[in-house]
Amino acid sequence: MQTLIVIKIGGNVIDDSAALQRFLTSFAGLPGSKLLVHGGGKIATQVAEKLGIPTTMVEGRRITDQPMLDVVTMVYGGLVNKQIVAKLQALTVNAIGMTGADAGTVLAKKRPVKDIDYGMVGDIEEVDSGQIQFFLRQNLTPVFAPITYSLSGDLLNTNADTMASAIAVDMVRHNDVTLLYCFEKKGVLKDPTDDTSVISELTPALYAEYKAAGIINKGMIPKLDNAFNALANGVSKVIICHADEVEMAVSQGAGTTLKLKDDQSGGYHTTS
Amino acid sequence: MQTLIVIKIGGNVIDDSAALQRFLTSFAGLPGSKLLVHGGGKIATQVAEKLGIPTTMVEGRRITDQPMLDVVTMVYGGLVNKQIVAKLQALTVNAIGMTGADAGTVLAKKRPVKDIDYGMVGDIEEVDSGQIQFFLRQNLTPVFAPITYSLSGDLLNTNADTMASAIAVDMVRHNDVTLLYCFEKKGVLKDPTDDTSVISELTPALYAEYKAAGIINKGMIPKLDNAFNALANGVSKVIICHADEVEMAVSQGAGTTLKLKDDQSGGYHTTS
Repeated sequence: MQTLIVIKIGGNVIDDSAALQRFLTSFAGLPGSKLLVHGGGKIATQVAEKLGIPTTMVEGRRITDQPMLDVVTMVYGGLVNKQIVAKLQALTVNAIGMTGADAGTVLAKKRPVKDIDYGMVGDIEEVDSGQIQFFLRQNLTPVFAPITYSLSGDLLNTNADTMASAIAVDMVRHNDVTLLYCFEKKGVLKDPTDDTSVISELTPALYAEYKAAGIINKGMIPKLDNAFNALANGVSKVIICHADEVEMAVSQGAGTTLKLKDDQSGGYHTTS
Repeated sequence: MQTLIVIKIGGNVIDDSAALQRFLTSFAGLPGSKLLVHGGGKIATQVAEKLGIPTTMVEGRRITDQPMLDVVTMVYGGLVNKQIVAKLQALTVNAIGMTGADAGTVLAKKRPVKDIDYGMVGDIEEVDSGQIQFFLRQNLTPVFAPITYSLSGDLLNTNADTMASAIAVDMVRHNDVTLLYCFEKKGVLKDPTDDTSVISELTPALYAEYKAAGIINKGMIPKLDNAFNALANGVSKVIICHADEVEMAVSQGAGTTLKLKDDQSGGYHTTS
């Protein structure tokens, strides 16, 4: 079975043009089939501010009303996505930028209103892995913006971590899949103030322990939930790593590797 | 040889959401392979104004500096393109939104500075018709935003009429191609104040005559130059028509049909 590396890069990497260029150069150097999912970074918030579109927060959560969805579509689906595609083309990677609407690859459903109306936010219903596989077979490298669509023709804002996880899980039908979450830290840290305290292996038991102790918290929790979900659903390897250490992470020398069972010594190693 | 209809829709159609929906519904109903190239409309200018990016004009021509290119990439490549794709998906057309950078489909070169520095504007160098044909064979319908890319990894603003013409010409390798320029008029008009004075057939000789008489002028001239260029380079049929009359135009019942030779009675017909 052929291999596929699915990588999600976070907003902090996108906001730093030098870091983005370093990452894309590493990405271009990875052998075999690969697929990129990018977040948005701060540009969307900046553009929304300049356009006079207020950021609506309900109980600490951002709401995507129609004007904000338009900004997200412009910035993630347009500016960020196409800049990455053009840079990859210059690195001789035949990239194709997409949202979930393109070629009907990632169908979603507007999140039902319960306690909070999140607005134009999509929960993924179906990934067309056959369609994505068709692009990969043609030596194309899909680059996904975190936007999906509904059958009624709406675009929907979707969490990039979730989108990467959902795509990786569905691509298991055709590939041996490795999923990397790349950001500005060297992995999941045991001590948030110490960048070298990377937890080298994380099992669900260890994850629960660290969560209970408050060591793993905030935005890292949904990321890890997505990551463990991918592992539980057939993705062969899931790694959380620094965007500068993609190549090392793939060869198992960097970042936090998730394991479903404690088959090796857990704990953490110190990285330089 | 299989047939392909390449359609370019202008900015006025995009700015009018009801007109756009009517056009997309007609487009969805067209049989066989089809491909859409869209312009930008006024949204880019509006967004640029709100973002405080001045429109720079030199000798009556708009200059695309980097901030304006970013706006064009956001609005054309993001907002307009993805909204069209999602609407087509709802009409069961498996659309895939692209710029020329995506899958390396339309390569360009930054326009050299002679008298005027147009900035980040691309003159098309090469269309990868094999790649586009590959999408069509997969029953995908490409939807192009008027943005290209250079080998150095820059995105470039490109005239949508020219892009439609260049794509149509290159697709002749694989298809019998019909090219339609759709806008808010019923065709090329003999009297700009009379919407029913459509010139039904236009030859280069008649075109020269109308230009000399000032009947055809302004923005219609580059559009017709692009259109005649396509016809001279193997495109089977080129029609200028109203966005509401796409289906009639394809069956030869509406708009202005371009002819290389005066093989039939020219002149104009009156439409209702």
